[in-house]
Amino acid sequence: MLEDILHQVANGELSPEEAKEKLATFENLGFAKVDHHRKKRQGFPEVIFGEGKSASQIIDISRAMMNKQENILITRVSEEKATAICEEIPSFEYDQISRTLVRRYQEKLEYQLDGYIAIVCAGTSDLSVAEEAAKTAEAFGVEVRRFYDVGVAGIHRLFAHIDEIRDATVSVVIAGMEGALPSVVGGLVSHPIIAVPTSIGYGANFQGLSALLTMLNSCASGISVVNIDNGFGGAYNAILIHRLANKRT
Amino acid sequence: MLEDILHQVANGELSPEEAKEKLATFENLGFAKVDHHRKKRQGFPEVIFGEGKSASQIIDISRAMMNKQENILITRVSEEKATAICEEIPSFEYDQISRTLVRRYQEKLEYQLDGYIAIVCAGTSDLSVAEEAAKTAEAFGVEVRRFYDVGVAGIHRLFAHIDEIRDATVSVVIAGMEGALPSVVGGLVSHPIIAVPTSIGYGANFQGLSALLTMLNSCASGISVVNIDNGFGGAYNAILIHRLANKRT
Amino acid sequence: MLEDILHQVANGELSPEEAKEKLATFENLGFAKVDHHRKKRQGFPEVIFGEGKSASQIIDISRAMMNKQENILITRVSEEKATAICEEIPSFEYDQISRTLVRRYQEKLEYQLDGYIAIVCAGTSDLSVAEEAAKTAEAFGVEVRRFYDVGVAGIHRLFAHIDEIRDATVSVVIAGMEGALPSVVGGLVSHPIIAVPTSIGYGANFQGLSALLTMLNSCASGISVVNIDNGFGGAYNAILIHRLANKRT
Amino acid sequence: MLEDILHQVANGELSPEEAKEKLATFENLGFAKVDHHRKKRQGFPEVIFGEGKSASQIIDISRAMMNKQENILITRVSEEKATAICEEIPSFEYDQISRTLVRRYQEKLEYQLDGYIAIVCAGTSDLSVAEEAAKTAEAFGVEVRRFYDVGVAGIHRLFAHIDEIRDATVSVVIAGMEGALPSVVGGLVSHPIIAVPTSIGYGANFQGLSALLTMLNSCASGISVVNIDNGFGGAYNAILIHRLANKRT
Amino acid sequence: MLEDILHQVANGELSPEEAKEKLATFENLGFAKVDHHRKKRQGFPEVIFGEGKSASQIIDISRAMMNKQENILITRVSEEKATAICEEIPSFEYDQISRTLVRRYQEKLEYQLDGYIAIVCAGTSDLSVAEEAAKTAEAFGVEVRRFYDVGVAGIHRLFAHIDEIRDATVSVVIAGMEGALPSVVGGLVSHPIIAVPTSIGYGANFQGLSALLTMLNSCASGISVVNIDNGFGGAYNAILIHRLANKRT
Amino acid sequence: MLEDILHQVANGELSPEEAKEKLATFENLGFAKVDHHRKKRQGFPEVIFGEGKSASQIIDISRAMMNKQENILITRVSEEKATAICEEIPSFEYDQISRTLVRRYQEKLEYQLDGYIAIVCAGTSDLSVAEEAAKTAEAFGVEVRRFYDVGVAGIHRLFAHIDEIRDATVSVVIAGMEGALPSVVGGLVSHPIIAVPTSIGYGANFQGLSALLTMLNSCASGISVVNIDNGFGGAYNAILIHRLANKRT
Amino acid sequence: MLEDILHQVANGELSPEEAKEKLATFENLGFAKVDHHRKKRQGFPEVIFGEGKSASQIIDISRAMMNKQENILITRVSEEKATAICEEIPSFEYDQISRTLVRRYQEKLEYQLDGYIAIVCAGTSDLSVAEEAAKTAEAFGVEVRRFYDVGVAGIHRLFAHIDEIRDATVSVVIAGMEGALPSVVGGLVSHPIIAVPTSIGYGANFQGLSALLTMLNSCASGISVVNIDNGFGGAYNAILIHRLANKRT
Amino acid sequence: MLEDILHQVANGELSPEEAKEKLATFENLGFAKVDHHRKKRQGFPEVIFGEGKSASQIIDISRAMMNKQENILITRVSEEKATAICEEIPSFEYDQISRTLVRRYQEKLEYQLDGYIAIVCAGTSDLSVAEEAAKTAEAFGVEVRRFYDVGVAGIHRLFAHIDEIRDATVSVVIAGMEGALPSVVGGLVSHPIIAVPTSIGYGANFQGLSALLTMLNSCASGISVVNIDNGFGGAYNAILIHRLANKRT
Repeated sequence: MLEDILHQVANGELSPEEAKEKLATFENLGFAKVDHHRKKRQGFPEVIFGEGKSASQIIDISRAMMNKQENILITRVSEEKATAICEEIPSFEYDQISRTLVRRYQEKLEYQLDGYIAIVCAGTSDLSVAEEAAKTAEAFGVEVRRFYDVGVAGIHRLFAHIDEIRDATVSVVIAGMEGALPSVVGGLVSHPIIAVPTSIGYGANFQGLSALLTMLNSCASGISVVNIDNGFGGAYNAILIHRLANKRT
Repeated sequence: MLEDILHQVANGELSPEEAKEKLATFENLGFAKVDHHRKKRQGFPEVIFGEGKSASQIIDISRAMMNKQENILITRVSEEKATAICEEIPSFEYDQISRTLVRRYQEKLEYQLDGYIAIVCAGTSDLSVAEEAAKTAEAFGVEVRRFYDVGVAGIHRLFAHIDEIRDATVSVVIAGMEGALPSVVGGLVSHPIIAVPTSIGYGANFQGLSALLTMLNSCASGISVVNIDNGFGGAYNAILIHRLANKRT
Repeated sequence: MLEDILHQVANGELSPEEAKEKLATFENLGFAKVDHHRKKRQGFPEVIFGEGKSASQIIDISRAMMNKQENILITRVSEEKATAICEEIPSFEYDQISRTLVRRYQEKLEYQLDGYIAIVCAGTSDLSVAEEAAKTAEAFGVEVRRFYDVGVAGIHRLFAHIDEIRDATVSVVIAGMEGALPSVVGGLVSHPIIAVPTSIGYGANFQGLSALLTMLNSCASGISVVNIDNGFGGAYNAILIHRLANKRT
Repeated sequence: MLEDILHQVANGELSPEEAKEKLATFENLGFAKVDHHRKKRQGFPEVIFGEGKSASQIIDISRAMMNKQENILITRVSEEKATAICEEIPSFEYDQISRTLVRRYQEKLEYQLDGYIAIVCAGTSDLSVAEEAAKTAEAFGVEVRRFYDVGVAGIHRLFAHIDEIRDATVSVVIAGMEGALPSVVGGLVSHPIIAVPTSIGYGANFQGLSALLTMLNSCASGISVVNIDNGFGGAYNAILIHRLANKRT
Repeated sequence: MLEDILHQVANGELSPEEAKEKLATFENLGFAKVDHHRKKRQGFPEVIFGEGKSASQIIDISRAMMNKQENILITRVSEEKATAICEEIPSFEYDQISRTLVRRYQEKLEYQLDGYIAIVCAGTSDLSVAEEAAKTAEAFGVEVRRFYDVGVAGIHRLFAHIDEIRDATVSVVIAGMEGALPSVVGGLVSHPIIAVPTSIGYGANFQGLSALLTMLNSCASGISVVNIDNGFGGAYNAILIHRLANKRT
Repeated sequence: MLEDILHQVANGELSPEEAKEKLATFENLGFAKVDHHRKKRQGFPEVIFGEGKSASQIIDISRAMMNKQENILITRVSEEKATAICEEIPSFEYDQISRTLVRRYQEKLEYQLDGYIAIVCAGTSDLSVAEEAAKTAEAFGVEVRRFYDVGVAGIHRLFAHIDEIRDATVSVVIAGMEGALPSVVGGLVSHPIIAVPTSIGYGANFQGLSALLTMLNSCASGISVVNIDNGFGGAYNAILIHRLANKRT
Repeated sequence: MLEDILHQVANGELSPEEAKEKLATFENLGFAKVDHHRKKRQGFPEVIFGEGKSASQIIDISRAMMNKQENILITRVSEEKATAICEEIPSFEYDQISRTLVRRYQEKLEYQLDGYIAIVCAGTSDLSVAEEAAKTAEAFGVEVRRFYDVGVAGIHRLFAHIDEIRDATVSVVIAGMEGALPSVVGGLVSHPIIAVPTSIGYGANFQGLSALLTMLNSCASGISVVNIDNGFGGAYNAILIHRLANKRT
Repeated sequence: MLEDILHQVANGELSPEEAKEKLATFENLGFAKVDHHRKKRQGFPEVIFGEGKSASQIIDISRAMMNKQENILITRVSEEKATAICEEIPSFEYDQISRTLVRRYQEKLEYQLDGYIAIVCAGTSDLSVAEEAAKTAEAFGVEVRRFYDVGVAGIHRLFAHIDEIRDATVSVVIAGMEGALPSVVGGLVSHPIIAVPTSIGYGANFQGLSALLTMLNSCASGISVVNIDNGFGGAYNAILIHRLANKRT
């Protein structure tokens, strides 16, 4: 494209001044490649991190996005804020457990992905983080299968579902307390595992530090870790991998 | 298969005793699926974690494996140990920087993978960890492209190579000191990033804790983290993803 | 001056008792030099750290200062306290985002400073700290240019403004989460950078510890760090440097 | 006994002076009960913590004990020290892996204990701590069964032995790295588990802190924890429990 | 049992299909052994960890359990929640100090245990944790003796009761602040001690970390530790040991 | 310059192909501005961080630089390495205390700076870090005045020199142990202070953490902090400020 | 006394049974010595740690003590609780800043102590802890002189009072933020200093950890430290020393 | 004295110039009072902290001091260094356990102190720190009584000596591992206790952190704490108190 502009200058189609302006745009294109790459992620909804933003701030951002007619996912929204937002924008659906707001502009994605992501979680108390992960994946148009309450203290519950977990493309494994679940799953499956420590626990759990360290030190290979309680991040990494496996990056 | 056995018992082809023995095997197959799944990872070399093992222990384990005529990768081997091992088993090649020993039984993998993994690293001082990752990927038959010394303090060096990094299936991004590189790369590419903090640094680096926390807290999406200095683990996660992208899981 | 007093004693102009009293003052002058030096900082407003002080305590302190007819800056004032204070002293202006109260006695400083300080910040969530820095600098009569929402995860936004940042005398760079922004800016500018970690983040951020360690370990030279969320301190250091550059220390 | 003495004084068998001396002893008996209770632990060998003591100090202490004709267990003895000690006292046997010195005065205990303690350990790298536990139990005359290399990353190895582990009176479960093994075992057995974290690991393991926190936060009930690498302590607790189960406390 | 089924298939009593269904059950029995082992713990009440569960969730879980006509213990229930639950299920008894809810279906256990567990605690401020331990043991049908306010700063109070403590099967020793009590008790008794650190304290106590470290580092043998404030866990370990001593494991 | 090129294309002085090549260069200039800015720092020596580099690596890098005929500063060089390097490159001067190697190509800087930097340090044990700072500043052609052994425990020593410290442009204040010196100096001077914590101390000093926290929490304004033991970094920040004050940025 | 009893038994004045009872008392005297020693601290008020105790609990304890007609000091009492207590026991005086309740039974101590304790504190924000110390000392009948707001950032304020501080028997030095004040005072006085870190500060202060570490690492001799915010403890240590100096231990 | 000078000026005995010079001295006397106060500590030996100083540095400093004919105490001297120093200055006596060098110029102090300091320590492994304290006190001419190996795990050994400990003026109580000893002693004596944590221990002891936190959190009053392993500091505080009790401050 640079070449074209220069030829147009050479043959007088463009004045140097017009060319300069175009090249300024061109120069920005250097960075716009970022967006171009982002475009490859077509169908990805816009995501807003709701924590620390007021209801009215979220409404403003959402309205700006709705003009673009895109799907929207908002994470970490308290029930109170959600009520205020939904009153203004009724097309949002709020999910209490995952604390997510989702607006579906396109009911169907323009493409179809094979397979599913396994969301595996240790206890019912990790549910909120697990559902943030599940709702995120679903908002990105990815099929999710939930395997909840399969913690290591009652490992037969995990075994009852291990085949279905094995058949997933990638697993998001969520655990609080001692955070041992990813290690056990990691020894039983052959696909990548994204481990999400949660802050569930008490005493020497230190707000999730215990589970975080456990997961980083896992003796099973094929496990990588995201931040404490970061259900969204866990799912996002899994989605990128899932799409790679579908060759529609 | 269980059904078959029972029918054989019903029609007298198997005595109950013979069936019991078979079912015992069958029961073990419940776990053997693990190995079956592992078999899917065909062509994967055997990996030995060399730290804390003596030269003679490593020699014994290696010899047992060589009977299986498989490729072997040994990580974290000091130069002194490597010399002792190579004297006994001359088919091993030692790499000083990555501190890995590799033995190639099959020169060529029986399959061919498209694309490559990007190994991106901040400073020359992270070289040892970066090369552990690179040598690991190569031992698994995966093509690697190295982007070294592209740290954030001189970000133009990173930009000079960003297109080639973008075209990788997955990046392993290694950084010590403040560990900011994965965040910057994460904002510029659309594939998954495995971040490896290193213990390189001094003072308030606290043996890699600083870089580890930075990576876990990255505001860029699509980044997951492995343990400090765990070049092998970073590569292993990337390999799993790379194979998924090649549909040969 | 000591010499003068002694001569006055020698020639009887002062009794030893009168001289003693004067010398007591003189002795205090030893420390009063501090204030003399402080006077060099002419035009500096009085600053009150509002946190942990009640509205009525702040009112009392402010009134005492107003007698001196000086500008006043009060940091860390909650909205509730601000309302109570402004009712009593209407000449205060409250800024909600930075949580500062400012009273301008002199509209114009008696001197003019060339150039400006760049306030650079990563995300909208760091706004409160960034604005505390900006309002501080403005209360000290220093021009400020704001570069907000230029975090490393979308580094092209930073590049769009890098020339204007480069032309500042000094930058105050504010970041939470992984705190990588000062390292990136530090690699692109040649003036001193004061880095301010914020407590924005979650999980393994540990109330700003992550960003603090990142900044202390920066591999870019020319970066020094102040306490977590200390927007005032960041600006104050920048002001001292800015004035040095203006030769009006 | 006090009563006896007083009656003897009353009927003149003891002078008040003689009684006083006896009562002094009696008073000490208040504390001597401690030893009396200790006596209940008959057959327990004398234990010396060898770390930080020189070979000659250990020789002196051992000789004093040998006069009492008791079994002796010395923990944390380096090979070099052991050689020096065994030269002086040839009746000691040194075990390189557990770094223990044992001297058996009585080949057979004067009583017989039913059942055994299970020593379960995750990886070969925890062997040293596991063997310190095993040798300790054996020095106390307790039967030990070893279940080594049954870590959670290959959980089928654990299942292969789970029945024999279940039949133990009590388990000492040793693990480094992420320290998840006690949680898994705890979900499969119904007896008490003493968990021993080891300092084996690297990076964010922080010298065993990771495994320690994991074990303290275990969601399985019936697990209590001793200090990092404290194989002796783990075994000692198990021995006390094992004896209780044998009604020979 | 497997043998029986196979023989029944061989002699036509079972069709292969019926056998398969039975063996499915059998296969699950592999893990059901867990429950079988759990059954050995006959008379153990069902336990619910109340923290993080809503009143209505607890009511639902409790009702499901009541169908099984078992005793129920619910820990960590706030007074407010307890009121709501007791209104619905009046057979629950709430204890304010220990914050436990207990429902006794069987007034008497079907067996009788000899001896008692000592619950020893340092200060009145640790009462809540101590009572959680005591109520837990009582809910499991184990006799408890309480030794409260016997902290090391007034050690004569401990000595006044030491004989009665010594005669227990096992002690649960609870302490906050500096957490030294288990060490002192450990030097005076010969049975196992389960140490429970509490978060009681201030300043450098760091929410129980100080007491936790003290107990892990105890120079007295025979002490193992559970999580901070984990009164239930402390008691549960003691109960397992107490039953072993009663030969009714 | 872009404009010039376009005009040359417009009037045929350049072919579009030649222009494209030039613009490629131009595009790189976007980043080359960095170096242009760096050029403003003319006279700055090349700096090599010597730690973790072998003697032969340092020799290679140095030789490459010597071709550019620039001054060279190498920090963190052990005596042993220095000897090896000086044998090869005799023009290097080694300073044992600061562990720096300096090679002066230009005896005189091409410009002259007014004023000086104060290097203030608490104890003789911080000398190594203080001298690294001092030698760095001198290698950059900046005058340094040393105020050593003026720690807060003997504050009269500080007062004896306070006027000379006050007259510096900027102070680098270095302290280990409790790290209180910057706070005290900060209350007595009106210029910016760069605080450098050192790892000197023992016990609860935790390798400099104590001094680092002290400095970050200083109640004196005008203090910013660099990494533990980072004498070079402290000086570098001071040099940038000193040059600003000299209007030769 | 033991001797007397035995002689009485010998000559029939006491029956063995009567003697036994007496000796039981005697045995307890072994520990009663503690109280005897405590009696040496005559005039010491009873002290109650109010935190974590309800108003009614405090009222009960206080009433029991009032029967003994002693002075009472209650620390850490919130205003709300104090109001409730004073309604029931009007003889209590509440101090809002120190949050102490004091009841004076004896207006005058039966003895007179020479000299005074200096309570030195850095900032107005440490006032609450300083006043807890001051009120404690006064409740123990010890004269106190207050030196407030003499922090190291304005060290001339400290110098203005240094002579009066020097003349104290012992100083309690209280500081938050960077906690440097005890080091400075320690270099200027020759009596013992009890340092009290406070949790005042923000960011990297970590609830007083920063000040605590500073004080423990002080390079001035003659400083010992108590827990964070422990104004009572600081004063109590000072009182013990002050009494020693008055020879009325 | 100021008054005198002024009068001399007034009556011509001093010229203003002479007075100025004298007053300069006088001004310095402001700080010299420090030394004057120090002089009150007459008989105190010079103390050198030997760690981090070379043998030749120590020899130089010692020689300078010997001119002053004072006693000298050097702490933290390794055996190797001590040998080198004693060869040069044979009047030094080295003590291997405490690692102190002492030179006695005056055999007898010019004054006599009543009473003694108790040095109480938990285990033989804390001996080095305990002896550093003891040798320090003796070098200052203070009588010391040693109570070693009286740890809380065998508390009857402590009780055997408690009366003699009670009769000391002040106790220095030293403990590693869990550090509980000061709390126990604190409950039994009525004089001040200086607690010294040691780094003796392993695993979760974290180089003395465990003992340090225990001591800071002691529920016994009258305990203050110095840095880890700081035997000298513990003794120094005790000496200051001991002298106060002797009215020879």
